[in-house]
Amino acid sequence: MSSFGTLFRVTTYGESHCKSVGCIVDGVPPNLELTEDDIQPQLTRRRPGQSKLSTPRNEKDRVEIQSGTENGLTLGSPIAMIVKNEDHRPHDYSETDLYPRPSHADWTYIQKYGTKSSSGGGRSSARETIGRVAAGAIAEKLLSKANGVEIVAFVSSIGPVSMARDASDPKFHELLNTVTREQIDATGPIRCPDETVREDMVKVIEKYRDAQDSIGGVVTCVVRNCPIGLGEPCFDKLEAKLAHAMLSLPATKGFEFGSGFLGTQIPGSKHNDPFYYDELHKRLRTTTNFSGGIQGGISNGENIYFSVAFKSAATISQEQPTATYDGKDGVLAARGRHDPSVTPRAVPIVESMTALVLADQLLIQKARESGAAIVGN
Amino acid sequence: MSSFGTLFRVTTYGESHCKSVGCIVDGVPPNLELTEDDIQPQLTRRRPGQSKLSTPRNEKDRVEIQSGTENGLTLGSPIAMIVKNEDHRPHDYSETDLYPRPSHADWTYIQKYGTKSSSGGGRSSARETIGRVAAGAIAEKLLSKANGVEIVAFVSSIGPVSMARDASDPKFHELLNTVTREQIDATGPIRCPDETVREDMVKVIEKYRDAQDSIGGVVTCVVRNCPIGLGEPCFDKLEAKLAHAMLSLPATKGFEFGSGFLGTQIPGSKHNDPFYYDELHKRLRTTTNFSGGIQGGISNGENIYFSVAFKSAATISQEQPTATYDGKDGVLAARGRHDPSVTPRAVPIVESMTALVLADQLLIQKARESGAAIVGN
Amino acid sequence: MSSFGTLFRVTTYGESHCKSVGCIVDGVPPNLELTEDDIQPQLTRRRPGQSKLSTPRNEKDRVEIQSGTENGLTLGSPIAMIVKNEDHRPHDYSETDLYPRPSHADWTYIQKYGTKSSSGGGRSSARETIGRVAAGAIAEKLLSKANGVEIVAFVSSIGPVSMARDASDPKFHELLNTVTREQIDATGPIRCPDETVREDMVKVIEKYRDAQDSIGGVVTCVVRNCPIGLGEPCFDKLEAKLAHAMLSLPATKGFEFGSGFLGTQIPGSKHNDPFYYDELHKRLRTTTNFSGGIQGGISNGENIYFSVAFKSAATISQEQPTATYDGKDGVLAARGRHDPSVTPRAVPIVESMTALVLADQLLIQKARESGAAIVGN
Amino acid sequence: MSSFGTLFRVTTYGESHCKSVGCIVDGVPPNLELTEDDIQPQLTRRRPGQSKLSTPRNEKDRVEIQSGTENGLTLGSPIAMIVKNEDHRPHDYSETDLYPRPSHADWTYIQKYGTKSSSGGGRSSARETIGRVAAGAIAEKLLSKANGVEIVAFVSSIGPVSMARDASDPKFHELLNTVTREQIDATGPIRCPDETVREDMVKVIEKYRDAQDSIGGVVTCVVRNCPIGLGEPCFDKLEAKLAHAMLSLPATKGFEFGSGFLGTQIPGSKHNDPFYYDELHKRLRTTTNFSGGIQGGISNGENIYFSVAFKSAATISQEQPTATYDGKDGVLAARGRHDPSVTPRAVPIVESMTALVLADQLLIQKARESGAAIVGN
Repeated sequence: MSSFGTLFRVTTYGESHCKSVGCIVDGVPPNLELTEDDIQPQLTRRRPGQSKLSTPRNEKDRVEIQSGTENGLTLGSPIAMIVKNEDHRPHDYSETDLYPRPSHADWTYIQKYGTKSSSGGGRSSARETIGRVAAGAIAEKLLSKANGVEIVAFVSSIGPVSMARDASDPKFHELLNTVTREQIDATGPIRCPDETVREDMVKVIEKYRDAQDSIGGVVTCVVRNCPIGLGEPCFDKLEAKLAHAMLSLPATKGFEFGSGFLGTQIPGSKHNDPFYYDELHKRLRTTTNFSGGIQGGISNGENIYFSVAFKSAATISQEQPTATYDGKDGVLAARGRHDPSVTPRAVPIVESMTALVLADQLLIQKARESGAAIVGN
Repeated sequence: MSSFGTLFRVTTYGESHCKSVGCIVDGVPPNLELTEDDIQPQLTRRRPGQSKLSTPRNEKDRVEIQSGTENGLTLGSPIAMIVKNEDHRPHDYSETDLYPRPSHADWTYIQKYGTKSSSGGGRSSARETIGRVAAGAIAEKLLSKANGVEIVAFVSSIGPVSMARDASDPKFHELLNTVTREQIDATGPIRCPDETVREDMVKVIEKYRDAQDSIGGVVTCVVRNCPIGLGEPCFDKLEAKLAHAMLSLPATKGFEFGSGFLGTQIPGSKHNDPFYYDELHKRLRTTTNFSGGIQGGISNGENIYFSVAFKSAATISQEQPTATYDGKDGVLAARGRHDPSVTPRAVPIVESMTALVLADQLLIQKARESGAAIVGN
Repeated sequence: MSSFGTLFRVTTYGESHCKSVGCIVDGVPPNLELTEDDIQPQLTRRRPGQSKLSTPRNEKDRVEIQSGTENGLTLGSPIAMIVKNEDHRPHDYSETDLYPRPSHADWTYIQKYGTKSSSGGGRSSARETIGRVAAGAIAEKLLSKANGVEIVAFVSSIGPVSMARDASDPKFHELLNTVTREQIDATGPIRCPDETVREDMVKVIEKYRDAQDSIGGVVTCVVRNCPIGLGEPCFDKLEAKLAHAMLSLPATKGFEFGSGFLGTQIPGSKHNDPFYYDELHKRLRTTTNFSGGIQGGISNGENIYFSVAFKSAATISQEQPTATYDGKDGVLAARGRHDPSVTPRAVPIVESMTALVLADQLLIQKARESGAAIVGN
Repeated sequence: MSSFGTLFRVTTYGESHCKSVGCIVDGVPPNLELTEDDIQPQLTRRRPGQSKLSTPRNEKDRVEIQSGTENGLTLGSPIAMIVKNEDHRPHDYSETDLYPRPSHADWTYIQKYGTKSSSGGGRSSARETIGRVAAGAIAEKLLSKANGVEIVAFVSSIGPVSMARDASDPKFHELLNTVTREQIDATGPIRCPDETVREDMVKVIEKYRDAQDSIGGVVTCVVRNCPIGLGEPCFDKLEAKLAHAMLSLPATKGFEFGSGFLGTQIPGSKHNDPFYYDELHKRLRTTTNFSGGIQGGISNGENIYFSVAFKSAATISQEQPTATYDGKDGVLAARGRHDPSVTPRAVPIVESMTALVLADQLLIQKARESGAAIVGN
């Protein structure tokens, strides 16, 4: 289905060639200051066509709030937002339409639905993420009020070029502690905070762009000041919800949090995060953070950090030997220009999905805390 | 919450020191042949104490079906299953109870609930997975009827010792095509099908066991004969559901499917899976399978395969410098003997969660197909 | 929350003074012929200002499909629909705004949300039902394809004037068997099929209108050709879902199905519906239908019929002694003209909610049937 | 499905002839004092065989808590409860099994599931309500802590004999203000607080019992001290949730709240509940309560009251002409003795479902209030 969340819930709609894309966000608390100006920045960061590293289409993507606010304040009722599609005519069919695009959703959609939209994969289009980003911007406003929650994502690898993101490395944790969205944007379209690899990343993208090819990458995200206690012990562990959210994004191939896959190689005696008493916060904290801020499925107040793998974009301009829908071998010829790496554009989308998970879990945990307070004892 | 699934839904209960653990499985179709004998084998595979590689406690874990079957056939009504806890007395408190165990759920539970069960993390105990495995066994029976679905998981790495699981490697795909649960079990407690690394894996575990330490690993899982069309385009992509399921397991740190994290380094021109017409199946298939059997969030009929990272077990026997609940520095002393690697035991649990995801998505997709058939056109 | 349904799900948004109202309908099967022309008729029937019996505001309520269709066919993706509000400026505040309107949502909204929208009760406005009616029109199209399902609602009482709707009465069942939406609309704005009471109903409404007062009524609804097997045995009985749907409509006070409250007075020996073999349908049917087409929570193929009580509209033009928000006694003075009876306008809304329940249960049951077919035996 | 609730959720299992019936209650706050002694009383009140007015089977129905508590306090984890079935052998088939019992679930179950349990309707058995009552007892404990919530249900009519329950009648409201569960139980098995009709009710039941027939009735329920703000504006109005809950009970035919069906005849000028300032509670209250404590879908702090219609029990001992499963006309002969009126036994079940609705809505509203508090302004 097209809904996500229990108490803070977004429902999205839209594909590339319909009138508009957008969402309804249900469960936003009342009295939150909210106008289009709070939402547009992340939509703009999500937009393609921002540099020669990304696709040159210039979608305008202006969001319009339809409901749920009055005089710049939320009402507590659902907030509908729409972003008009610039060109909502069904596209002209051409010979390329005889081919399901390899590693796209074209073929599986036809298998599932028995129908094909002119935008091919339809809802698997990256354009569907507009509704998520718009909703995420509202979630972020709420979270920043909650505990000063900060969510910052960035590119940590492009193809084989990777910055260090080793959970054992104090420098990496220093970066997680301090990196800001402004710093990331100041690095230009590559959105990588590590100057030692940034240029190489750009070169990799340019190389594949010039070869009419594409290349993948990894986005890493940190959440600072996450309230303690978010997430539920069993099926709804916080990491499970985050994994669900991230793998629901187009083109993702993997998710890891804290020490991640490399953590499997670190023995327990080193991997365990010892507790100490922190005088500043007047509570226990951990001296290391291999746990990635989540223990037993529940946030522990340390930085939450995780990484998401994005595959090389399936849409490439070079010719690809493949087969038509009706099984004839052939070559899918190039059409248009395409984004050689979607990874940098995924940065605000990862942030948005993170915010949606946390806002929902925050409200659920508030209910839990209230229940405990009622019981007293 | 403790429920998972929409139309095929499991709800689990229980912690280490209560009377029993178990689950209710709702949405099981009627007339399925089902007795305890269908469920016990996976529970037995899940059990600790099966070898010197795992913890020596000998839990019996006999499942009893309470409802939902009659004369060996399911009724369509909920199937409750219980497994009695051998020792359901609250444990004796000792000095070790002054310490939240590092990288356990002890501290986050107290933060979330304001209470501490004698089984520490309570629901985060590995014993909670009994209900999942019992439910998964039913899901597997349904899936095997559906399309001959086969689900086989195995250990693919222990600490630094890893078998090849490169999506570019034909030998790896050959393994995925053929490996059986019987073959895995024949490898002994290590549950790794690759004889070239198996011995080294055992040695690694023994090394950490002897050092009163622990070590993590990776479980890889393949699904063969998955029906085409499972999964939904947006938030409920099949990979998102699988990621959610896997990261909801205790001690997991990451999930990747198909080409995974390494896939980010393979350019689109190689990473895209070209189509060809398969005479045998009378439909399009792909010549490679970097996609891992899922495109646009929807299964495409190729093998689904994915890997799950399990951290080094947090419970170790050696002393750990840490702090008490009330903030005093100290050393958490050893108690009992513990599993040096939970990874091999995770194999049936990964299979079970996979089955739960697929059974639910299968029923949902059947509703979609029926809806399309109603519309006709 | 603002969502309803599991596999066929509507999410609505909007209040009186925002830019638009509307909905997202998720789970609509692909390839269904669908344009605005399929949706507008029920919206037009819902519209106020259609006669001197209802409020003179002339809302245009033109629906615009935003997504989910192409070339007049559904895609399987979510269908967003919007209806622009004619006047979406926050209204001018006046002295009447000092008073929570009696038996409106004004006061409870402030208690719940701590905020007040200029449209008073905000989401409790009748205008919210536009999204439901638009979604219901799609559900009806699907249902008519499924089994020729027909849903017809009508006014069965206004104030004390009531047509016979006794489950023991063959004439009532004859009416249920045959009445059409066209016949209902041909009766004019009163929407009552019984000519013996129709005029009296109109007179009652006129009497209360002239007295600047309001009066309630009952809407009865019949579903013909409902597929057998819809509804689930326990919490999701079909009557429970219908009751939920109906009581979620503004101004409702009660729900009864089949023999209803009067049925409590009929002894079991008469109330039980005996079975007979129907040669035409080649299956068991019942000779009477006190059950209202639902037994054990599951549709049995007989007509489903139920009634919904609508209270006298809370908004009246005459002066009402009451208190201001801050507790001062006073008199809420008249403002504008108001609908003396909302009951006739509720007819298409009741039909729409019925369709939403049935479409969702139909898809769920199709999944159940498919599950049973997989198992075979 | 067999689950009910969002944050406070019960999942039930079991039918008449399986090993046990029971439930899992998820979302119970931690630290609540809870033992079997808190749950048994309502189960005992639910039990059949308590008088010559009800069926003579003497089920013992002892509840056993399996999980979720320790040392008499809840842990915050799911609470599983089981009640063993005394005789869990599949019953002996006899000639009566050739007939679907009229107005039972036998036939619709076979249509839905294609299978027949030896307990006939299986999950539609009244025995399924044991899990609901056990769960409701926990919900009640929470609610009594929350705001001193009191829930009292009673029989308000049996067949044609009805006590006054007119929303215009001050005496009825006086009763709602004061009636206690103890008073109800002191009236004996009839459970009607109105002494003027009680004897006649008993006579009606005895008459139908002696005629091997059955008769229906109405249960009325009042909720006192309900927190203000429970319920959501749109689909999840508090009355919609209550209606859903009540119509999910076996044998129900209708639901009305506040003025109910009769309220449709009261003009708005009288039906509207004027506000006044209540010095005691320091807030607005209403001078009348036709609204039944819910306005705009949200509780307003006045008494919530509603009535539920229960049909005459379908199981009667006298012979019934009907047809066999395979369509042959015949007479279903008597078997055993049966409850001539299930209405009095429904009293604790209605209370339990009410508690389940309110506990869930309470936790949801606590999340809403916390969200508003976070936003501040």
